[in-house]
Amino acid sequence: MDNLFSALHKYYEEMVSIRRYLHENPELSFQEVHTPAYIANYHRDLGLEVREGVGGRGVVATLRGAKPGKTVAIRADFDALAIQELNDIPFKSKVDGVMHACGHDGHTAIALVLAKTLYEMKEDFHGNIVFIHQFAEEITPGGAKPMIEDGCLDGVDVIFGTHLWAPTPLGDVSVRNGAIMAAADMFEITIHGKGGHGAEPHNSVDAIVTGSQFITQLQTVVSRRVDPLKSAVVSVGHFEAINPFNVIAEKVVIKGTVRTFEEGVRSFIENEIELLLKSICDGAHATYEFKFTRGYPPVVNHKKETQFLADIACQVPEVKNVAECSPLMVGEDFAYYLEKVPGTFFITGAKNPEWDIVYPHHHPKFNFDEKAMLIAAKTLGLAALTYLKNNK
Amino acid sequence: MDNLFSALHKYYEEMVSIRRYLHENPELSFQEVHTPAYIANYHRDLGLEVREGVGGRGVVATLRGAKPGKTVAIRADFDALAIQELNDIPFKSKVDGVMHACGHDGHTAIALVLAKTLYEMKEDFHGNIVFIHQFAEEITPGGAKPMIEDGCLDGVDVIFGTHLWAPTPLGDVSVRNGAIMAAADMFEITIHGKGGHGAEPHNSVDAIVTGSQFITQLQTVVSRRVDPLKSAVVSVGHFEAINPFNVIAEKVVIKGTVRTFEEGVRSFIENEIELLLKSICDGAHATYEFKFTRGYPPVVNHKKETQFLADIACQVPEVKNVAECSPLMVGEDFAYYLEKVPGTFFITGAKNPEWDIVYPHHHPKFNFDEKAMLIAAKTLGLAALTYLKNNK
Amino acid sequence: MDNLFSALHKYYEEMVSIRRYLHENPELSFQEVHTPAYIANYHRDLGLEVREGVGGRGVVATLRGAKPGKTVAIRADFDALAIQELNDIPFKSKVDGVMHACGHDGHTAIALVLAKTLYEMKEDFHGNIVFIHQFAEEITPGGAKPMIEDGCLDGVDVIFGTHLWAPTPLGDVSVRNGAIMAAADMFEITIHGKGGHGAEPHNSVDAIVTGSQFITQLQTVVSRRVDPLKSAVVSVGHFEAINPFNVIAEKVVIKGTVRTFEEGVRSFIENEIELLLKSICDGAHATYEFKFTRGYPPVVNHKKETQFLADIACQVPEVKNVAECSPLMVGEDFAYYLEKVPGTFFITGAKNPEWDIVYPHHHPKFNFDEKAMLIAAKTLGLAALTYLKNNK
Amino acid sequence: MDNLFSALHKYYEEMVSIRRYLHENPELSFQEVHTPAYIANYHRDLGLEVREGVGGRGVVATLRGAKPGKTVAIRADFDALAIQELNDIPFKSKVDGVMHACGHDGHTAIALVLAKTLYEMKEDFHGNIVFIHQFAEEITPGGAKPMIEDGCLDGVDVIFGTHLWAPTPLGDVSVRNGAIMAAADMFEITIHGKGGHGAEPHNSVDAIVTGSQFITQLQTVVSRRVDPLKSAVVSVGHFEAINPFNVIAEKVVIKGTVRTFEEGVRSFIENEIELLLKSICDGAHATYEFKFTRGYPPVVNHKKETQFLADIACQVPEVKNVAECSPLMVGEDFAYYLEKVPGTFFITGAKNPEWDIVYPHHHPKFNFDEKAMLIAAKTLGLAALTYLKNNK
Repeated sequence: MDNLFSALHKYYEEMVSIRRYLHENPELSFQEVHTPAYIANYHRDLGLEVREGVGGRGVVATLRGAKPGKTVAIRADFDALAIQELNDIPFKSKVDGVMHACGHDGHTAIALVLAKTLYEMKEDFHGNIVFIHQFAEEITPGGAKPMIEDGCLDGVDVIFGTHLWAPTPLGDVSVRNGAIMAAADMFEITIHGKGGHGAEPHNSVDAIVTGSQFITQLQTVVSRRVDPLKSAVVSVGHFEAINPFNVIAEKVVIKGTVRTFEEGVRSFIENEIELLLKSICDGAHATYEFKFTRGYPPVVNHKKETQFLADIACQVPEVKNVAECSPLMVGEDFAYYLEKVPGTFFITGAKNPEWDIVYPHHHPKFNFDEKAMLIAAKTLGLAALTYLKNNK
Repeated sequence: MDNLFSALHKYYEEMVSIRRYLHENPELSFQEVHTPAYIANYHRDLGLEVREGVGGRGVVATLRGAKPGKTVAIRADFDALAIQELNDIPFKSKVDGVMHACGHDGHTAIALVLAKTLYEMKEDFHGNIVFIHQFAEEITPGGAKPMIEDGCLDGVDVIFGTHLWAPTPLGDVSVRNGAIMAAADMFEITIHGKGGHGAEPHNSVDAIVTGSQFITQLQTVVSRRVDPLKSAVVSVGHFEAINPFNVIAEKVVIKGTVRTFEEGVRSFIENEIELLLKSICDGAHATYEFKFTRGYPPVVNHKKETQFLADIACQVPEVKNVAECSPLMVGEDFAYYLEKVPGTFFITGAKNPEWDIVYPHHHPKFNFDEKAMLIAAKTLGLAALTYLKNNK
Repeated sequence: MDNLFSALHKYYEEMVSIRRYLHENPELSFQEVHTPAYIANYHRDLGLEVREGVGGRGVVATLRGAKPGKTVAIRADFDALAIQELNDIPFKSKVDGVMHACGHDGHTAIALVLAKTLYEMKEDFHGNIVFIHQFAEEITPGGAKPMIEDGCLDGVDVIFGTHLWAPTPLGDVSVRNGAIMAAADMFEITIHGKGGHGAEPHNSVDAIVTGSQFITQLQTVVSRRVDPLKSAVVSVGHFEAINPFNVIAEKVVIKGTVRTFEEGVRSFIENEIELLLKSICDGAHATYEFKFTRGYPPVVNHKKETQFLADIACQVPEVKNVAECSPLMVGEDFAYYLEKVPGTFFITGAKNPEWDIVYPHHHPKFNFDEKAMLIAAKTLGLAALTYLKNNK
Repeated sequence: MDNLFSALHKYYEEMVSIRRYLHENPELSFQEVHTPAYIANYHRDLGLEVREGVGGRGVVATLRGAKPGKTVAIRADFDALAIQELNDIPFKSKVDGVMHACGHDGHTAIALVLAKTLYEMKEDFHGNIVFIHQFAEEITPGGAKPMIEDGCLDGVDVIFGTHLWAPTPLGDVSVRNGAIMAAADMFEITIHGKGGHGAEPHNSVDAIVTGSQFITQLQTVVSRRVDPLKSAVVSVGHFEAINPFNVIAEKVVIKGTVRTFEEGVRSFIENEIELLLKSICDGAHATYEFKFTRGYPPVVNHKKETQFLADIACQVPEVKNVAECSPLMVGEDFAYYLEKVPGTFFITGAKNPEWDIVYPHHHPKFNFDEKAMLIAAKTLGLAALTYLKNNK
């Protein structure tokens, strides 16, 4: 433990410089080229076994301990977002309209430097540590699924992952047994009425009135239909009926999102939305198209591994507070790994205590306190070593 | 009467060719240049007194009978619409994106040929006939108001006008005492909520839900608040909230129209819409902007003149049916003339009995049966002569 | 004319005393016993042919002129209402909870005294005058229908009727070609949800929320579906879900009324209400029962007879104003007579100019200016005589 | 432990017979007379210090151990419900319309027999055990509050309580850190419109339409306004507008319940309901009355004591499963005790595994498996002794 921690301290500056290099050179999901090459080279230079192009653009690096044992996987995602950075920092993104605005640059830097540190300790442990560098987390269908299909979890006994989290204070580690991140689905609806002159409603089917009634009634999905003890959100973000003021709308296009934490609630809501839509249209002489696109499933942590990780986090000196967090309404394709192997996904607080304003993830001014990388690296490293020691 | 009718027959071909020339050369409202010049020249060539640039782009031509008497005005509008003609006819519009899709070309041809005919009969009548060629009927604030302010009604005792009407069969003349055409007003609303992530409705004010509830409740204006014996329409044609599916809308823009036949109902509805909007926003922690733009007032025909015109129409041989029509929900700035002098506005049926499909006014395939021009010319001409004879 | 008018003046006091006698002795619809006997005796004493029990409780009295000719019917209804009179007048109702609060006492007095007057003039006219004394106008299915089926219109060429109308000033006679009184229908709805504990909406189907959404959407029937130029009302007066505050309602009962002036609009609304109800219930996992009970059809006056009556009314000295009225939203089973024979139903103003407050029909303090009876008698009498004279 | 368990086994039959005696003789909340006297006598006969009339009708019995120490309170409620029992059992309620349909008879039997058992062991433990027999749990404002004000918690260091729970299987003990039972509040609303004839909506303010729109919009409180990660329910159970079908309702009365688990959410919802109500009424020209009556606050268990109780339950041989339950939406005035002293409230499963149908609490056929009493008594007894041992 002490070796691990001191080695990570020693390499902290390198971690920062890797993170900043990646921050300056972001690549969009499904378009990553230089980032996976950079990652693969780093691991290869260390001496790890490296497989590139996993599931498309992923990189898997395997570190084998001196003696046989279990296999722990650590996952870090590396894609960036289509956002124009507005930060005024020395390592600002050099790519117009693309930005690491979610901390994946940090995730990658953590994993690389942790690999370097653990590689130096490889004589001391049983088993293997697999670094799963995942492309395309930000955009469904995501990179996790094809990487799993391409074998990245083969032989893996347990998986850990974390998200640097700017709204959570530095020094906090948040864990949660069960669902920690939501299923984030999308629906797209077109309601077809019958257009006409604004003065002749009786010769038309008013798609705007129909759409408005649908949205008004949609509120009952959450307020009346879903178990109040189960969390769910149905939000419409897009309502489009662009016409002259004096016509009656032929159609409206409605788009929204559904967030849930359980498969049962998720499918129930999908069905109820369509049932409501159909009935409103039936009653209004309108017709509809309905498309429900599933995003990632909920991230459901495993109980034992979550408790284990919480205990580990308590041993990291910089960690001041390990607590159970509320589930987060965002989606994460870490979900897929946990459907296959035990493990847990946790939140590493990354809010600099001196910042007045904390910009949320995906904001053009997003940033995080880099010291959180050290905390995450220590936690993940200690988790891996302890797991291998306990399970040899 | 017989002289008038036979002369109009004689000039019918000219009427058609004028109409077709104008149809080929349409000009948008408030942008008319060649059309008023053409009209002015025509009248000047006949020998009438012509005033150009009346109220901006209008033309007023005065025909003085041999002996002194009353003054009858006949109004014809001459602007076209921003529509790309889709008819396949020899006299199709030569101007891209501009089309006489409402029959104003016909109105102008009627007035010009009627002037020619009546000019030849000028020794036979007492008093004067004023031809008011109006620009910009299609777009508020319209040409009628500035032309009146510029004196086009000075000395006028009575005014007549007609609209060639494609949905009404050729041979029908429709009259109506009181309101024959609606006030057509516009409202524009912005509802300001508070944007946010689709997963966090409690940190946002959902402008789409607020807008939908407003539209849902707006139905009570007509269904519960306006006297059911009084006609009114409130239609929303535009609902705009263009956002990614997974956000909560910061604002929505709503545009709509109100149609009424009485000033009391009109102002009442304006007030109720804002009251509803305010209350819905209050209840939702949202704010709003509300703009109500009055279009033309209702066209309110005068009783005596309407009865007179109905009697006249019965004497036109081609007229098979003179009946009271329901009011029309469209707007017309003929309304302003009738606020100043007695008169009536009537409908001249222009549906060719052999057409299977009749395209409505303002449609890219709009057309009318040109024989309706002859009926309108006879009715207006006989009305003018009879009025002058009866009131000398 | 002069004979008629002066005779009616002479008998005006009797008319008043008959009206007051009837007012003191009201009988409920379908329970009339003494009133029809009184009427029959009166006519019999005069010398008219009397048929009792017509269609149940109606009385038909026939007055034959000296010479053969056409047959004019005059209809007067005679039932009272289940209202406790609150007037403080010498001739206040002697029957607890029953009151002539709609003027049928006056209608009957008019007809009786008119019969007396015309009987004295029977040598002077051709043809016959039939007095149709109708029971049960206030409650559907009404007395008109069975009286017609029992032959009360046999041989009748034209029918006239009037309603004394307290909101209209004394001296006004209001006529209207076409629909003057509405179809007044009833609907009764039960929505069946699934009851449950107020804390467990997801295990229930909330009938109150479903009913509320139905009523909210019901507004679109008038606001969007019916032609805005056609009058219609849909009102819900009864919404019943009586439960403890902390349960979810198993069912709601909704009752309302529909008012229309055209058969097409009437059936359209019936269909749309059920369509809406069905669709709302479908979307909410609820079921429903729907019962639509037609009241009287609209009273549709005939054109020629209405114009004739208007001309007649102008000749009555006490009539100061004959005008076309707006249609009235109330129902009247005079409608059935006009489906069989030509005729017209008109409004006789009965508001005393000195009254500050005019209580509406069916109010416990309803009253009317008795001088209106004289005006109605003169108008009906002159109409009958003139018709017979013109059509002999 | 073994002594305790074997003693309780020995007295199990007495426990059953006490429960059945109480079941036969139920008393309504705030009307309890014989039950508290019975309880007081029982304790007095054992030799405990007894205080009667605590806070009105409560009984507090104190059992002092041989040596000084901490004080543990055990609470049992003893009121019954206004329900006519429909069970066909030998010990059926002898009081018409009153029934122990919630298990309070069992709670009391547990506490009495536990007192007897522990009294016999009093030489063995340090400190005191206080039995709080509470009246009037079923009806707000409840008996807990006045009993606390009357000192029932004076000197108490920790409190434990349980509810026998028919829907949970026998052998299960459910615990929950934090909120385990909801705040259950009531709202009562009157909306005042303006009554009128169903045919004249424009002269009225339709209270039914206004109420329906309020309920429709009320859905947004849960669907949009409350944090989706926090549970809340808003249910309307009562909607009353009893009128003839053809009037417009003067007023509606609406009653409903709100369930929450946090004070912040609770007050927020109270405010939002009134805000919505006010705005809907403002927009409809209506006025309102709003009354929000708070029921019990949420039962919020203390962390340490909950964990302690869970560990205790695991030591009871008949307990097969100790698990964290979801919070229950029902209210409990045990909440007030936990606002004053540490403690926990837990659920003792009481569903007989052989029953096909389990009737819910407050059902006329409610019953529970009496063996659950033994489990509860063992758990409470062991908790008390262990606590006193650990904290001496």
